[in-house]
Amino acid sequence: MKRTIGIVLFPGFEMLDAMGPVELFGMHADAFEIVIVAEQSGTVASAQGPKSVVDATFAENRHYDILLVPGGPGTRKEVENPVIIDWLREASARSEYVTSVCTGAALLAQAGILNGKKATTNKISFGWVVSQGPTVDWVPEARWVVDGSVLTSSGVSAGMDMALALIAMLLGEKAAEDAALWAEYTWHRDKDHDPFAKAAGLV
Amino acid sequence: MKRTIGIVLFPGFEMLDAMGPVELFGMHADAFEIVIVAEQSGTVASAQGPKSVVDATFAENRHYDILLVPGGPGTRKEVENPVIIDWLREASARSEYVTSVCTGAALLAQAGILNGKKATTNKISFGWVVSQGPTVDWVPEARWVVDGSVLTSSGVSAGMDMALALIAMLLGEKAAEDAALWAEYTWHRDKDHDPFAKAAGLV
Repeated sequence: MKRTIGIVLFPGFEMLDAMGPVELFGMHADAFEIVIVAEQSGTVASAQGPKSVVDATFAENRHYDILLVPGGPGTRKEVENPVIIDWLREASARSEYVTSVCTGAALLAQAGILNGKKATTNKISFGWVVSQGPTVDWVPEARWVVDGSVLTSSGVSAGMDMALALIAMLLGEKAAEDAALWAEYTWHRDKDHDPFAKAAGLV
Repeated sequence: MKRTIGIVLFPGFEMLDAMGPVELFGMHADAFEIVIVAEQSGTVASAQGPKSVVDATFAENRHYDILLVPGGPGTRKEVENPVIIDWLREASARSEYVTSVCTGAALLAQAGILNGKKATTNKISFGWVVSQGPTVDWVPEARWVVDGSVLTSSGVSAGMDMALALIAMLLGEKAAEDAALWAEYTWHRDKDHDPFAKAAGLV
């Protein structure tokens, strides 16, 4: 069974939040199809400048087995955009796994997807994200957090470690190790090891 | 002085090779402008599927202070494409720094940019890249190599460590440390530490 991963982009998304996981899931092209999904068709600009091409819009209502929501400065505006928030709520109800990287957790929180669940997010913007989800059990010190079918990661590069964890859950440890090896990436396998929580004064 | 970085894309480029460095250079938007440059205007598809928007074509002949050439399966075709090889030779002569990630070094080698220089590349495809540049002093065990104004990195994620090294060279160590911190990325600062050379049986 090939799973479709919807990478949910919006103007001002953080490039590596999205494309780090894309790289690692892409190492197993037999198991995953990657689709860039956004509110508007055409193109969407990252916070860093380079733009991505949108493969499908929210309105097309395609099925995604896995959703990945990156963070980035654009989340500050998107938490108040009912189109993305409502779509995330509906699409997540039909998906097998919902994941976020960095401040992407603020969008999941606004959509109610994290209510009563453990979750983490970017460490420098921790306070702002927490304010978007008062009923979430926020974990300040974690590289990523798994709560049932919801995986949330810390800032930017932590998304790669979370992606490898999800690959391990779905395809086995060897598949995750292979993806890391092919990317010459040293996987941080301990989800509780988070030096950036201390750096940000959270613990 | 703001430097323009040309990210040189072609069909079948490796996503993280390009977008890992884009993320880190993008952390210092006051110092770097990032431009996606390619042979054809429009869009260019990564090996992983998602497509990037081309900001400028080779023919537009813009000035780039820094060139970054990613690898990916598309390099196998591009080493025989005189349009990209000739353009790399000309553009690199006018640039301050030329950099490659992974098998992007094969394109620099074909363009003669690495002749007589020390360079490294992806470890699993090492033999193929070496065959593209017989007069290059290839270094099997290195996370990245600096030879004058040419920086070459090992596979995929090594491009991020090389990008941080270049940020340190241009803006100082603190600027590189800040970029890594904001990306919650553990910078591998020792350019000679390369566990993947051993994993590939090169040392």
